[in-house]
Amino acid sequence: MDIAAVNGLPYEDFVDIFGNVVEKCPIITAAVWTKRPFASLNALEAAIHEFIDALPQSGKEGILRCHPDLAGRDLHSGTLTRESREEQARAGMHALGPEESRRVARLNDEYKQRFGFPFVICARMSDKASILLQLSERCRNERAVELARGIEEVKKICRLRLQGLVHSDAPNKL
Amino acid sequence: MDIAAVNGLPYEDFVDIFGNVVEKCPIITAAVWTKRPFASLNALEAAIHEFIDALPQSGKEGILRCHPDLAGRDLHSGTLTRESREEQARAGMHALGPEESRRVARLNDEYKQRFGFPFVICARMSDKASILLQLSERCRNERAVELARGIEEVKKICRLRLQGLVHSDAPNKL
Repeated sequence: MDIAAVNGLPYEDFVDIFGNVVEKCPIITAAVWTKRPFASLNALEAAIHEFIDALPQSGKEGILRCHPDLAGRDLHSGTLTRESREEQARAGMHALGPEESRRVARLNDEYKQRFGFPFVICARMSDKASILLQLSERCRNERAVELARGIEEVKKICRLRLQGLVHSDAPNKL
Repeated sequence: MDIAAVNGLPYEDFVDIFGNVVEKCPIITAAVWTKRPFASLNALEAAIHEFIDALPQSGKEGILRCHPDLAGRDLHSGTLTRESREEQARAGMHALGPEESRRVARLNDEYKQRFGFPFVICARMSDKASILLQLSERCRNERAVELARGIEEVKKICRLRLQGLVHSDAPNKL
């Protein structure tokens, strides 16, 4: 699909196709439909960023809280969204050893206890060792730093999900 | 569940339980968790209203676009959320005659074409005849009027969904 086709979509199809570019937040996709036509994939991405950035702090925290834990209960119970399942699997999160699993569970809990939202990372831009390292390091950050960092990761995830859905003439520039 | 129990929920359980009080907008529920503890069910409802009211116009339109059509494709394909299915069924939307079905489909399309979001109504506060009448009448409103009216209906739906989940000491005052 190219950007001209995207611009021609009725909102229902637009939300069906792009509704999960920000995990479990179809309202964001549904809101930016108002801003069409988009000159490019970059412009669609920019509209999503603009919406996210204008949210109050609680709204940004809300976005993070819509994300599953890495290697957490949604993965184990099979209730991850398709996108999250694929991303966590690529990073090896579905195949942790027992020791690693316990460590990740403990660090996830520590992180959530400390910040009131989950550890969010763009798993496709990382690998298992790096994810585990960042999880343990980011637990020690200040809350404001982690909120901003989590939202940055949400935007990276969004970019890759968009790239998987729309052909860009200049993919390196997205 | 009473409000003390609600206030004690970790965000994951809070979002699991209340994530669909605004249809397909768990971000709203996840955001207001930040505002706990809630003095009452009214206070929880007020926090949700405050979040919705602070959204830009595109965000309010986004909320409406997350709603299914009445007696539309999600009902026919079995993909309504549990809450919407029950609400539409109570109002008789699952049992329209062929003539009524065609009329509703035509009016839904006309409404969406005109406004760029779907007709939203609190079906549980209405009945089939009244819903069909309002659908045909509201098609003729101005867009700004319908956006405000749709959001009012979203809040009524939210109130009834909340009342179904939390015991209130003063249910008449919710």
